[in-house]
Amino acid sequence: MKAIVFDKELKLLKDVSLPDLRQNEALIKVIVTGICNTDYEITKGYMGYKGILGHEFVGIVENVNGPDKSWIGKRVAGEINDGCGKCEYCLKGLERHCPNRETLGIWKKDGCMAEYVSVPVKNLIEIPDDIASNEAVFIEPLAAALEILEQLHIKPYEKVAILGDGKLGLTTALALNASGLDVLLIGKHQNKLDIANNQHVKTCLLDAMIIKNQYDVVVEATGSLSGFETSISLVKPRGTLVLKSTIAASKEFNFAPIVVNEITVLGSRCGQFKPALRFLEQKKIDFKPLISAIYPIDKAIEAFEKNKEKDTIKILISMENK
Amino acid sequence: MKAIVFDKELKLLKDVSLPDLRQNEALIKVIVTGICNTDYEITKGYMGYKGILGHEFVGIVENVNGPDKSWIGKRVAGEINDGCGKCEYCLKGLERHCPNRETLGIWKKDGCMAEYVSVPVKNLIEIPDDIASNEAVFIEPLAAALEILEQLHIKPYEKVAILGDGKLGLTTALALNASGLDVLLIGKHQNKLDIANNQHVKTCLLDAMIIKNQYDVVVEATGSLSGFETSISLVKPRGTLVLKSTIAASKEFNFAPIVVNEITVLGSRCGQFKPALRFLEQKKIDFKPLISAIYPIDKAIEAFEKNKEKDTIKILISMENK
Repeated sequence: MKAIVFDKELKLLKDVSLPDLRQNEALIKVIVTGICNTDYEITKGYMGYKGILGHEFVGIVENVNGPDKSWIGKRVAGEINDGCGKCEYCLKGLERHCPNRETLGIWKKDGCMAEYVSVPVKNLIEIPDDIASNEAVFIEPLAAALEILEQLHIKPYEKVAILGDGKLGLTTALALNASGLDVLLIGKHQNKLDIANNQHVKTCLLDAMIIKNQYDVVVEATGSLSGFETSISLVKPRGTLVLKSTIAASKEFNFAPIVVNEITVLGSRCGQFKPALRFLEQKKIDFKPLISAIYPIDKAIEAFEKNKEKDTIKILISMENK
Repeated sequence: MKAIVFDKELKLLKDVSLPDLRQNEALIKVIVTGICNTDYEITKGYMGYKGILGHEFVGIVENVNGPDKSWIGKRVAGEINDGCGKCEYCLKGLERHCPNRETLGIWKKDGCMAEYVSVPVKNLIEIPDDIASNEAVFIEPLAAALEILEQLHIKPYEKVAILGDGKLGLTTALALNASGLDVLLIGKHQNKLDIANNQHVKTCLLDAMIIKNQYDVVVEATGSLSGFETSISLVKPRGTLVLKSTIAASKEFNFAPIVVNEITVLGSRCGQFKPALRFLEQKKIDFKPLISAIYPIDKAIEAFEKNKEKDTIKILISMENK
């Protein structure tokens, strides 16, 4: 099969073997997959991962190695963390923190940027017919955005600012706004802010902002140290700064404002798919304006190049359109 | 009066005017004052503060500029933050986050390392007769330790590790242990760990630790970047890292583990005196072993020199013993 592989460099291979199915795994023929910034980070060395990239997908179950054959033929997405099922985290429903987990296309398990992917049956979720695959593929980043609400109780009167108008910031702003919260999206690109604004999210250009610590909750979605510093300046004393993107401080960084203002910095990663599916079913968010381009798998390397461009939001890779 | 003043350099001045009393302020004849690491940081430029140092004190009220003369003659300590009384923080009892606050010996208000200090009457707390001044002077750092329990609900079965066996770490370990929590104090100095151990706190030398993310709550009390990094390695996924001391990263620092493990980093500063006084009244903690030396004010510069030594824990400065 064709597969997008990272091993020192990014390659499109055409003769990769089909995945071996372990017990209770499903073989899925991938329809569409999305490029996440984590994929791009991996190509720069993040997690030391080597193998097939990708963790956002929609596909059709072709086979199941186990008793649950009823999945065959269904259109599905799949949660990306596979835990041991026995540790304290798995037993609490937190497979995504299992110390022995595998994570699709990120850690120890081949990803979904291929014609076929194997996923544990317990991780699958069926996609209803009225949700197009190109929308359903947003279930993973949407779940990650909604993870914030699993971790943090944001009250109806609290003010939320989201810093960064890339795909992560846009998805988070749309998700929290669709949750009834008082959201302001702050970014540098009017065309990206307009996408949120068209769906009733308040927006503001960073340059036009008066930076003042007035937000109960600030979501850092720029992935830059300067964004993190701006976020600290935006969050109220005793407020919460949600860290959604991994940052490395490459210069001197002062933690004192976190202590002096008793700020809570909350790391936030993957989320559950079920609430995300509810949002998709209820058409709470229109993800189509976030799609910058759809590439066929044969042009995957071009797709990754396009993903780096400033004006790009979401790039999808289709396994069907040749 | 005599006063310990920082203005570019640390000085003992002998001809400083008595503090002017504003409306509803008390004039307090200081008995004893403690050196906090914040005082030392100020002498290195922290907060850009200039003036009389010191925020930990016990003294006798000599005068009140206002109707509440009943304070005169009482032995008191005083909360260190003075808010405007009108803003959203003050109205919630969070004067310590008032944007217009003054903080004794740290920000805009002369401190207590002098023969006399002025403090708003509303900040005073009376010290019962059976608590010695040299113990009562720990009320401020004890309140700061108990601040953690105002901010964070630590459950009885959760494991708490405190990293750092200086005065901050020791006070925090003793305070949380006296609160019935499962506490381990980790440090580099057996003699300091023994002080906690003698009061039933579990302790461990850092070198003897297996660094593994197994603690629900970790309190960083070393003030060093390496301590912060070790704390991140000790805290469980979804656990809380309490940042008690201000840190500046001077080298590359990677925030990714905070996001991947969804750690909460909680900045924590000053606390309320009332619960701290209850601990002192009930003799829950013996602070005497923390006192490394008591200097008379005339030897204040020596006291600050002594404070820098590795084996020093708490240095007190007495205004009475000549």
